[in-house]
Amino acid sequence: MPSLLYVTRRAHFSAAHRLFNPSFSDRENEAVFDKCASVNGHGHNYYIEVTVAGEPDPRTGYVMDLKKLKAIIDEHVIAHVDHKHLNMDVEFLRGIIPTAENIAVACWNQLEPHILNGHLYAVRLYETEQNFAEYKGEHS
Amino acid sequence: MPSLLYVTRRAHFSAAHRLFNPSFSDRENEAVFDKCASVNGHGHNYYIEVTVAGEPDPRTGYVMDLKKLKAIIDEHVIAHVDHKHLNMDVEFLRGIIPTAENIAVACWNQLEPHILNGHLYAVRLYETEQNFAEYKGEHS
Amino acid sequence: MPSLLYVTRRAHFSAAHRLFNPSFSDRENEAVFDKCASVNGHGHNYYIEVTVAGEPDPRTGYVMDLKKLKAIIDEHVIAHVDHKHLNMDVEFLRGIIPTAENIAVACWNQLEPHILNGHLYAVRLYETEQNFAEYKGEHS
Amino acid sequence: MPSLLYVTRRAHFSAAHRLFNPSFSDRENEAVFDKCASVNGHGHNYYIEVTVAGEPDPRTGYVMDLKKLKAIIDEHVIAHVDHKHLNMDVEFLRGIIPTAENIAVACWNQLEPHILNGHLYAVRLYETEQNFAEYKGEHS
Amino acid sequence: MPSLLYVTRRAHFSAAHRLFNPSFSDRENEAVFDKCASVNGHGHNYYIEVTVAGEPDPRTGYVMDLKKLKAIIDEHVIAHVDHKHLNMDVEFLRGIIPTAENIAVACWNQLEPHILNGHLYAVRLYETEQNFAEYKGEHS
Amino acid sequence: MPSLLYVTRRAHFSAAHRLFNPSFSDRENEAVFDKCASVNGHGHNYYIEVTVAGEPDPRTGYVMDLKKLKAIIDEHVIAHVDHKHLNMDVEFLRGIIPTAENIAVACWNQLEPHILNGHLYAVRLYETEQNFAEYKGEHS
Repeated sequence: MPSLLYVTRRAHFSAAHRLFNPSFSDRENEAVFDKCASVNGHGHNYYIEVTVAGEPDPRTGYVMDLKKLKAIIDEHVIAHVDHKHLNMDVEFLRGIIPTAENIAVACWNQLEPHILNGHLYAVRLYETEQNFAEYKGEHS
Repeated sequence: MPSLLYVTRRAHFSAAHRLFNPSFSDRENEAVFDKCASVNGHGHNYYIEVTVAGEPDPRTGYVMDLKKLKAIIDEHVIAHVDHKHLNMDVEFLRGIIPTAENIAVACWNQLEPHILNGHLYAVRLYETEQNFAEYKGEHS
Repeated sequence: MPSLLYVTRRAHFSAAHRLFNPSFSDRENEAVFDKCASVNGHGHNYYIEVTVAGEPDPRTGYVMDLKKLKAIIDEHVIAHVDHKHLNMDVEFLRGIIPTAENIAVACWNQLEPHILNGHLYAVRLYETEQNFAEYKGEHS
Repeated sequence: MPSLLYVTRRAHFSAAHRLFNPSFSDRENEAVFDKCASVNGHGHNYYIEVTVAGEPDPRTGYVMDLKKLKAIIDEHVIAHVDHKHLNMDVEFLRGIIPTAENIAVACWNQLEPHILNGHLYAVRLYETEQNFAEYKGEHS
Repeated sequence: MPSLLYVTRRAHFSAAHRLFNPSFSDRENEAVFDKCASVNGHGHNYYIEVTVAGEPDPRTGYVMDLKKLKAIIDEHVIAHVDHKHLNMDVEFLRGIIPTAENIAVACWNQLEPHILNGHLYAVRLYETEQNFAEYKGEHS
Repeated sequence: MPSLLYVTRRAHFSAAHRLFNPSFSDRENEAVFDKCASVNGHGHNYYIEVTVAGEPDPRTGYVMDLKKLKAIIDEHVIAHVDHKHLNMDVEFLRGIIPTAENIAVACWNQLEPHILNGHLYAVRLYETEQNFAEYKGEHS
């Protein structure tokens, strides 16, 4: 009866964003998003932690080679968002308010089809050391 | 079918405490709590991580504005415990041995009634970088 | 109805390891494990986080005294692996490819019989700040 | 003969920036600044460490009350840069390419006139965990 | 011509303290020390970094064995302050207002006579992640 | 009169090492190096911080492009030591006992000829979070 393990890889990107809803008035955006709605945007050093669950392959001891998981994160997330403006430059965030919550879900959708050993279990997105959001593919 | 997300805010307070049970003899307290029972108390830089679960509001992308969660933590936890002695100065810890476990439960009780968007999912209390306790509102 | 808490202790060890399967050819080992198969081995500052779940004892406020959990981790894990080569020096890793996954399961097996207050809930093993594996005693 | 001490306060801000020289062509900017010249900007969680040198006052034990140093940093740096775009929104960075080096010098100039107990010794500016610049008021 | 190196060892202690000057009135203490003067004290997880400068011994490659430096710090600092109240329990802090500055100088005086290979170069004392003081044996 | 700045880049490598002097007896090696002399070696996640001092170029705001400093560190240090055994695999450490002190000096010698903007100011080598050595090109 094989053991179930959770393996996690952490990666980093630096990006600008601005929180606002284009259907809100300026006053509403400032009331809701406060300083995060600052007109010219601001930015963060984001960290993403991607967790894959599965059984270790008895021949390698790997649920999944974390160097390969790193390559998948680099190709499908980091290459699109690093040193970019999340509201303007990122195809997979088009039309989405780039809160930590929405970025986490969008990264899940980018990554999930490419996890072939085990299955994607969680995406955790740190906006700062004080704030983070986690998505586990659940629906309420 | 909306996604379920977990958002977390981390906050900090510095406090003194002493671990002892007033119904124990000095010898029993020292046997049980060792150096943590040191008579004049000691202290820590505590970190609290508060996690709220819920669906992001489609108009804002927020499960809950983490600036508002910060304000709730500040009002109902930090203002009571920061730069205080946990055995002597804190109404909501009255009569409680201030272990990490008991502080985590007491902070849960302070915070839970004020979480109106989503629901409180976890309170994690770091006493040091090596020691922490987590409470998820569960009962055994 | 007593509360269920999760308490965690973090510990550290420095060790060498090499990832390779002795039944593979050199070429296969390099194809699978890449630079981790480097012949003379490499090493890490490992961190282990051990989580115990249970009810706090009302007389002490402890699920389990974390100083005692530290002593158990020191005796059954750290004393065996710190400043050692994980492929050659460690009885409880004999015959195991020392991936983070396999080390986490082996540490679980070392620790589980000694947790008498509450029960062992999780072992998380950090190989670097970017890579970690977690085992919760589950089987798939 | 009083002792000379160095006291440091660390603060944080999140901001967007873009590295480019308006007198360069687009091609030159990309050649020099690479991904940091990305047209819509990117951003960071910046940390600033401000060090003041002086003798502790024998009546207080303080070179300078670090809560007052925090207030000075908040008023003269953080209030101007937090949740802002460093190329567009910040008066004291007007006309300056916002590299870590130039931001550090500009923050020194903002802070230096307000340090009245002891003297400003160093400003260290972290752009990421991997990159930082330090200025000590020296000239070559 | 031998090289000059700086080697540093980091150690930790948890302690309570209260900032107040017994020759001040309560009102003066509160005006000067604010929340740090809270009557029952508060506390911190302190970190101390001790730096020794010298030439590596060509037979060992060590300026000084950092395990020996650890033992000196443990005996002359940590054993006196860990899990103690710095205003009441510590002989070497008797009569001293326990600011980060004064603790750093007092630790220097505790350690300096015991550094026999190389010489003590710096003592850095972190009160929190945001606040620290450093002493290098200098006088103004 | 141009300002003098210090810019630092941090990099990482994982390696095995063993501390022993081949001209010592086994007993002497164990007496001097203790657990660090463990026969099969152990290992660390090393961090290196490389600091370059100089004037920012007024056209770029850079003392030195830290992406270029990263490339130099990668080519002349990381490529040689990452996932290697420092006693056996590294040409530039041949015949050197791989203490933090000796590695820091050897990395200085690897890097110094390649720093053409500004000059190399310091190499800091972290063996663990508790132990590090720094070299500034000084001689005693």
